[in-house]
Amino acid sequence: MSIVTLLTDFGTADGYVGEMKGVLATAGAVEQVDIAHDLLPHDIDGARLALARYWRRFPPGTVHLVVIDPGVGGSRAALAVESEGRFLVGPDNGVLSPALLHAGARAVVLPIGASASPTFHGRDVFAPAAAQLALGATVDSLGSPHLAPIVRRTPEAERRGDGAVRGVVITIDRFGNAVTNLMARRGGTIEVAGLRLPLRRTYGDADPEAPLALIGSSGLVEIAVRDGSAAARLGLRRGSEVVLRNE
Amino acid sequence: MSIVTLLTDFGTADGYVGEMKGVLATAGAVEQVDIAHDLLPHDIDGARLALARYWRRFPPGTVHLVVIDPGVGGSRAALAVESEGRFLVGPDNGVLSPALLHAGARAVVLPIGASASPTFHGRDVFAPAAAQLALGATVDSLGSPHLAPIVRRTPEAERRGDGAVRGVVITIDRFGNAVTNLMARRGGTIEVAGLRLPLRRTYGDADPEAPLALIGSSGLVEIAVRDGSAAARLGLRRGSEVVLRNE
Amino acid sequence: MSIVTLLTDFGTADGYVGEMKGVLATAGAVEQVDIAHDLLPHDIDGARLALARYWRRFPPGTVHLVVIDPGVGGSRAALAVESEGRFLVGPDNGVLSPALLHAGARAVVLPIGASASPTFHGRDVFAPAAAQLALGATVDSLGSPHLAPIVRRTPEAERRGDGAVRGVVITIDRFGNAVTNLMARRGGTIEVAGLRLPLRRTYGDADPEAPLALIGSSGLVEIAVRDGSAAARLGLRRGSEVVLRNE
Repeated sequence: MSIVTLLTDFGTADGYVGEMKGVLATAGAVEQVDIAHDLLPHDIDGARLALARYWRRFPPGTVHLVVIDPGVGGSRAALAVESEGRFLVGPDNGVLSPALLHAGARAVVLPIGASASPTFHGRDVFAPAAAQLALGATVDSLGSPHLAPIVRRTPEAERRGDGAVRGVVITIDRFGNAVTNLMARRGGTIEVAGLRLPLRRTYGDADPEAPLALIGSSGLVEIAVRDGSAAARLGLRRGSEVVLRNE
Repeated sequence: MSIVTLLTDFGTADGYVGEMKGVLATAGAVEQVDIAHDLLPHDIDGARLALARYWRRFPPGTVHLVVIDPGVGGSRAALAVESEGRFLVGPDNGVLSPALLHAGARAVVLPIGASASPTFHGRDVFAPAAAQLALGATVDSLGSPHLAPIVRRTPEAERRGDGAVRGVVITIDRFGNAVTNLMARRGGTIEVAGLRLPLRRTYGDADPEAPLALIGSSGLVEIAVRDGSAAARLGLRRGSEVVLRNE
Repeated sequence: MSIVTLLTDFGTADGYVGEMKGVLATAGAVEQVDIAHDLLPHDIDGARLALARYWRRFPPGTVHLVVIDPGVGGSRAALAVESEGRFLVGPDNGVLSPALLHAGARAVVLPIGASASPTFHGRDVFAPAAAQLALGATVDSLGSPHLAPIVRRTPEAERRGDGAVRGVVITIDRFGNAVTNLMARRGGTIEVAGLRLPLRRTYGDADPEAPLALIGSSGLVEIAVRDGSAAARLGLRRGSEVVLRNE
């Protein structure tokens, strides 16, 4: 039985996710796994970053259904993607970038049926396509090649003349940790909010109220405050500048 | 393996939903699908509207467990319902109306066992009944006919003398869209909050900050603001008046 | 197929829970059941109380994965526990107390692999151990005996000289009910916030706005206000004193 994961910004209380789950269940032979439905409305960047964390943790054959879709019913394409043995369906707005950026990724454009609600492709386009993939359909059988460039988003860190790398905060997690786009493997120094912080190993490696920098579980530099919110303490938000010096 | 869906206003952090899931799991051979647990406490109308969206999207044989139950332990009956080949269990307070209003719906009153907690029928009455239905029991085998009138709620739109139809906002969704009880199939004009809005096709069919009216994915008229909250922008809430003119 | 339940304080939007679910899915043959991910960050007491409610409601063989882990990467041990035929994995910070306090509970210390992220044992230590247990591994095969005392938390009620029992509010649930650590089987009087309240049967047994005391679905005394929040109305919070008199 194939797995279909669900990531949306629909919340659950309105019943929209319930409708999608009903479509999947009716298609049959599908195991549904919730990732999240409480993304901020229209938060394509947050969804992209969450997806980057989990999509390859699931086994080959898994279908990831991703519906953060402010452009629903407009001109944006609906995509089905195969990458690294996993499948993904969702809108062509950058949210599927983590899979699209992999070498060998294939994408097709899903047709929008005449009976599809122009405000709910999650139910009428993406969930049916996810179910077909879970039941063994190939990506190519579901749509046609994408001729226009596909939207791919990635906030690249920038190497400066002095050897330092300039990055930004890309998200604030539930604990108030500020996650950056700076990849790091070992020590170094982080400059953020007027502070210079050595890279530590884990949250407990600093005093309870002191800010610290560490390499998070995805290899990205994070700014944290043990037992508190680094974002609140240092005034950080998405886009705040962070610099890594390998010294 | 039969599906049991769960809709409650319990939140998840307190562990009450976990108790219900344990009861279902112990009964065996049941696939659990979460719909939502974050309905506003005691929001029977919100639950009813969510249920209307998803209950028939699931395949025949599905059991919908719906526990929004402010009257637990009091005189309200506990119901098991069969309608359109699906099963539903929940309190007799109107929350099951979408299924009860269908021709051919059958309802029985579930007995309340002596050991049932008077504050938690979700765990001790409804989840066990849902498990039995999922395992093949008939509705009739679970209870006795309901002699008193069953509570059915439905906010009917009202046709006025001038041919217009007067309705109300029935819920505000997570995106701030105001969903009404006005059914529409094609064009017309909506009067709301002192504005006259033509019915559009989707969110992108208006300027980013302009209010628009459209036919939502369930056939109901919605008032929306692209990239914003119509409810906040126009001061709409449940019960706000909305008029549809077919002109 | 064995069940693995998940209880965390990670929220879902950041994708951390998605990573754990991917690890479980890749291990195979595991049915995942969400309990909650919206516990207050680092709320060990709240998690412990939720766990107390549901862990034995699931059938023998179930694995409960509990990751409320402010000390991750520090000196706290990672535990696997067998108790009453169920398995539990989580940090040694008291969160597993409901199972550890049972006679016959066995606990081992899980090794932390060199490649485990020091900030995410949920993904790299606990989820893999949970998967192994679900697939049939014994607790003893997963780790070594715990030599230091295991953390066990339990807020004991205190019997006073006059025969009354003094307890405290241990949590406020989503409805604003104040749950205490006072066990009761039948009548009595509760003293709280300067009031004397007889123990009632259910929420409807008092006037809509009047505070009432009752025996909740786990046998613990609760203070409630029908159609309102007792915590807000009476100024109750965790630790507020509550006295039970059996008279």
